[in-house]
Amino acid sequence: MTMINAYDNAQADALSPADRALIDRRAKALGPAYRLFYDQPLHITRSEGVWLWDKDGRKYLDAYNNVASVGHCHPRVVEAITHQLGVLNTHTRYLHENVVTYAERLLATMPDALGHVMFTCTGSEANDIALRIARSYTRREGVIVTRLAYHGLTEAVAELSPSLGDFTPRSPRIRLIDAPDTLRIPAAEQGAKLAADLGQAIAEMRADGVEPAAFIVDTIFSSDGLHPDPAGFLQPAVDLIRAEGGLFIADEVQPGFARTGDAFWGFQRHRLVPDMVTMGKPMGNGFPLSGTAMRPELVQEFGEKARYFNTFGGNPVAAAAGMAVLDVIVDEGLQANATAVGGYLKGGLQDIATRYPEIGHVRGAGLFLAVECVTARETNAPDAARAKFVVNHLRQNGVLISATGPGANVMKIRPPLVLQQAEATLFLDATEAAFAAARAEGV
Amino acid sequence: MTMINAYDNAQADALSPADRALIDRRAKALGPAYRLFYDQPLHITRSEGVWLWDKDGRKYLDAYNNVASVGHCHPRVVEAITHQLGVLNTHTRYLHENVVTYAERLLATMPDALGHVMFTCTGSEANDIALRIARSYTRREGVIVTRLAYHGLTEAVAELSPSLGDFTPRSPRIRLIDAPDTLRIPAAEQGAKLAADLGQAIAEMRADGVEPAAFIVDTIFSSDGLHPDPAGFLQPAVDLIRAEGGLFIADEVQPGFARTGDAFWGFQRHRLVPDMVTMGKPMGNGFPLSGTAMRPELVQEFGEKARYFNTFGGNPVAAAAGMAVLDVIVDEGLQANATAVGGYLKGGLQDIATRYPEIGHVRGAGLFLAVECVTARETNAPDAARAKFVVNHLRQNGVLISATGPGANVMKIRPPLVLQQAEATLFLDATEAAFAAARAEGV
Repeated sequence: MTMINAYDNAQADALSPADRALIDRRAKALGPAYRLFYDQPLHITRSEGVWLWDKDGRKYLDAYNNVASVGHCHPRVVEAITHQLGVLNTHTRYLHENVVTYAERLLATMPDALGHVMFTCTGSEANDIALRIARSYTRREGVIVTRLAYHGLTEAVAELSPSLGDFTPRSPRIRLIDAPDTLRIPAAEQGAKLAADLGQAIAEMRADGVEPAAFIVDTIFSSDGLHPDPAGFLQPAVDLIRAEGGLFIADEVQPGFARTGDAFWGFQRHRLVPDMVTMGKPMGNGFPLSGTAMRPELVQEFGEKARYFNTFGGNPVAAAAGMAVLDVIVDEGLQANATAVGGYLKGGLQDIATRYPEIGHVRGAGLFLAVECVTARETNAPDAARAKFVVNHLRQNGVLISATGPGANVMKIRPPLVLQQAEATLFLDATEAAFAAARAEGV
Repeated sequence: MTMINAYDNAQADALSPADRALIDRRAKALGPAYRLFYDQPLHITRSEGVWLWDKDGRKYLDAYNNVASVGHCHPRVVEAITHQLGVLNTHTRYLHENVVTYAERLLATMPDALGHVMFTCTGSEANDIALRIARSYTRREGVIVTRLAYHGLTEAVAELSPSLGDFTPRSPRIRLIDAPDTLRIPAAEQGAKLAADLGQAIAEMRADGVEPAAFIVDTIFSSDGLHPDPAGFLQPAVDLIRAEGGLFIADEVQPGFARTGDAFWGFQRHRLVPDMVTMGKPMGNGFPLSGTAMRPELVQEFGEKARYFNTFGGNPVAAAAGMAVLDVIVDEGLQANATAVGGYLKGGLQDIATRYPEIGHVRGAGLFLAVECVTARETNAPDAARAKFVVNHLRQNGVLISATGPGANVMKIRPPLVLQQAEATLFLDATEAAFAAARAEGV
């Protein structure tokens, strides 16, 4: 499966000699598994807030990166990391206040039922340990995920990431079901259809002798094309997996940490209490930090008999970074900002859609928005070529997004949460110009 | 399996009310999978070079932590991270010089055959991606590891970590063989025995329909009790796995980055060129950074068809941290220091052993040393009680080590590489005092 928005080295002739040389050195040293974004890759050298600068000093509005979620190079996060780096950076086999206080603060953002949190370094590790604990607790192996899910890239969670393509092995323990589709399935049917599909997958799994341990979803279905609405549609599927003896794991790497505006966590938008919650990307604003929260009983036997030690996970510096991110989200009102500026942005995109029927749908929550390109609103057939054109046109005009979804036709808009209205206006203007250019060029 | 040198909460009465309270908060928030070191856990709040300070201002000589390998809070590493944090911290889907230059510098420390390196955040992730690539290349599943190996804790590499105990599942794809034993197997037989054991494991695996994809070892066998000598003993086993169509993976998380003094990498001590090399802990001096180097052909198909993107792996800050560590190792001559101070320390321990027959063996390379406690030199029977006493006596006297090995009787001595002779003398004095106290108390 080709990655959406990947650079193709066959286009190297269009690049500057300096970029070509760096790409060659990179391929020689890092090998063929790495990918770059865009028809013309970006060589970024500096950043601040929602802005990135390339090596020639050109400025880009970052409407894509959810890792630097409280803004690139946020001084409070930089200061917290720098301070702790100079004082102590050991690990969790000595006592330290930071990791305990951070765990308490993180758990305070969640329902009481989620009583423990364990720390790791990447979203992959968070999902991997969630999976190990879920399998240990249920004494079962089966996992159901959506058809284009992405949950990481350890061997065990790469199985849960069909968006990586068919070369990545998937054992009979794993079953895929259709993701929700906000555009093509009526809102009132999303919940029942998801649960029915889940029920069928469980039945098929059982026919092969595999019992369901867990149903895991990104609660905003980012790699499946972004499907946040109607909030609440997950409930029937969650009820079903529990009735069948499995656990519900909410992967919050994408929607977590206030991005949707509606709530601090994506599962809260759906009014759910998951059995386990995994989190990552924005958690340390770029410092490698991730974690898994869970109902305490799930980890009781695992904890006693198997133990867990992640050398860097939850170390004093990681915890300092995580606390600084929580502080900034609260002190700068970033959840409310996601609602306000996200709402403005969504309204503006819907307005553009009135002039461009090439836009089949605008959806999203807070500062996680999707614009779906279609060949015609009557058929809603995906228009990947238009999405690709728009993504690259925006990049040439200094605005960064990417694309997602099974049709590769969904613009993925996911700026740092500090985006302001003036910057959102700039984004809207550039987007309308991109659709106009696409039309003018007969895309 | 109980963890060696783990705190047992049944001993909580011996602790201060403040420590008890923090331990209770910690258990409540983090749950039961976390472990603390020592009969009396340490609450460390500050560090510098080879020194740690607890919350009461008491100073400890760190002779254990190999993560802060160039010294705790090394100013050049702190400065490199701080600088880059303030400038840019994105990811590898934009071009950036740091990750390319760092990859080139890292590969320059290795044989030319190892042509590519990929970056991850933890040793677990490094071994996990090595395993995925090895299985993809060989189209085989089987892996052979030593009986008390530790290679990490994702689901796939936890299978390769029997030191975690029997609650951690292990599929029939994995076979265990005896580790080398420097004390109990004659030096001239280590290589032939290891190869013979490997051959038998491969035959047994094949009898169950599993083909060998890889033989992976920590090239200094840290969790198996530390077995560095005689250098070269790995060659027959490496020849065998290759003759059988499998790959040799050197896990350098423990011996890598100049620790052994003899070479920058543990496999170089054995005069080997592995097919893949994994690395972690000391790589970023505490910043989460790890990686996997490999022969280019191994990743060719995987890279083209499966791709790999680790959000934080090899980001501009991680690469800056990694480069600073390489700079410090070279500029401060830490490999030579490991040889010099390690040699002095080993000589001193051998001298103590002349007065304490309770010490069955002193071994190691550079600043990775082992002192094996035995009930009698005639039998070499492990004396775990003495090792535990010595480890905790040292801790009470301000010196930190831990223990390892199948008999839990091997003192594991692994200080930051900046250890100086005066500090080594302090360590030797405290060690002799600990053995004297053990004898006096009739341990």
